[in-house]
Amino acid sequence: MDGKKLAGEKAVESVKDGMILGLGTGSTVYWSILKLGELVKKGLDIKGVPTSKSTEKLAKELGIPLVSFSSINQIDLTIDGADEVNPNFELIKGGGGALLREKMVASISKSSIIVIDETKYVPNLGEFPLPVEIVQFGWEVTSKQISTLGCKPELRTKNNSPFVTDNGNYIFDCYFEKIDDAVKLNTRLNMIPGVVENGLFVHLADTIVVGKRDSSVDILYK
Amino acid sequence: MDGKKLAGEKAVESVKDGMILGLGTGSTVYWSILKLGELVKKGLDIKGVPTSKSTEKLAKELGIPLVSFSSINQIDLTIDGADEVNPNFELIKGGGGALLREKMVASISKSSIIVIDETKYVPNLGEFPLPVEIVQFGWEVTSKQISTLGCKPELRTKNNSPFVTDNGNYIFDCYFEKIDDAVKLNTRLNMIPGVVENGLFVHLADTIVVGKRDSSVDILYK
Repeated sequence: MDGKKLAGEKAVESVKDGMILGLGTGSTVYWSILKLGELVKKGLDIKGVPTSKSTEKLAKELGIPLVSFSSINQIDLTIDGADEVNPNFELIKGGGGALLREKMVASISKSSIIVIDETKYVPNLGEFPLPVEIVQFGWEVTSKQISTLGCKPELRTKNNSPFVTDNGNYIFDCYFEKIDDAVKLNTRLNMIPGVVENGLFVHLADTIVVGKRDSSVDILYK
Repeated sequence: MDGKKLAGEKAVESVKDGMILGLGTGSTVYWSILKLGELVKKGLDIKGVPTSKSTEKLAKELGIPLVSFSSINQIDLTIDGADEVNPNFELIKGGGGALLREKMVASISKSSIIVIDETKYVPNLGEFPLPVEIVQFGWEVTSKQISTLGCKPELRTKNNSPFVTDNGNYIFDCYFEKIDDAVKLNTRLNMIPGVVENGLFVHLADTIVVGKRDSSVDILYK
């Protein structure tokens, strides 16, 4: 069975009646949302907070009640994917470009489950390029400042133009190869003027659900 | 003589031929730019990098050659104002709403002179509300997270609508009353997802020029 499907569905076992639920984005959490849709039809009483327009659309089609991010104080549980996860429960996210909204949702979640297949679980972060969201003004200068941290930033493009996020910003995909200290890098990146947010998630995951090729599931608790 | 004019003109004595010069924004640095315009007419050879559209306009009118921020690696000297300065050379800036561009310019300046009148030189930062630039999405949630740091954030408005920065973001004016640790607060604010930048400038000023009511000028070196 597909590791993504296994992990995505397994995470939903933690959902309880009455919860406000952060709904992540991507091909693994897709299976969580599908499962949630089934359970809602059977009477599960939850409210979802989507992290992207695509998740919002999917949840609506499945009849999952939604609540706007602006109107809440706290989220009980968020289920989301990741591009890389290391044994310290540190993540790289944002390959899809929604890192800011995902980080905002994670930051007000009481608990957070990350669902991945085993290819995403790595000893060291950094083989996957780290997405960094930056303001458009002066992006060439911001690029030089980011590169002093030991990476090669590439401006993300779409149809030969710079890719623009939902917030009107650009994204650099930063090739670090190996990130030794995610906590420090997270801070150093965000302290560069022009950097809006970056895709390192530290202290934002409690549980990792890993779906494996042999059809087993590993659940890691922090 | 006006303290602002005294300070603004005094700072220009540090400008040398061949410099790339960061040109700040506001009613004190206005006098620096006027003086620079005079000197350029007499043959001073500099290039200016403006921090706002109003400064760009003024510099052009005065015949000061400009260079775009995107095309440079470093600025030799920046002259800028501030809303508050404490004896540790820490500043609050951004009352005018251009804090991000000002911070970007300051961050690549080899040296930086802050020009103020004596009313801006204070024992503790925080009586002036600290401007914080935030993304529009989820601003209500970001407001709650900022308020846990000990302030009352007020969304800046203009003509009864939220004020929008050059980067398409909102501004909170944050009433802290007294800021004990500017370095720590600067980091904590920027680490909140949704915060783009804040108006605390630490380690970004070398010289403070204070114009006083009695027509004297204090020059403070770090």
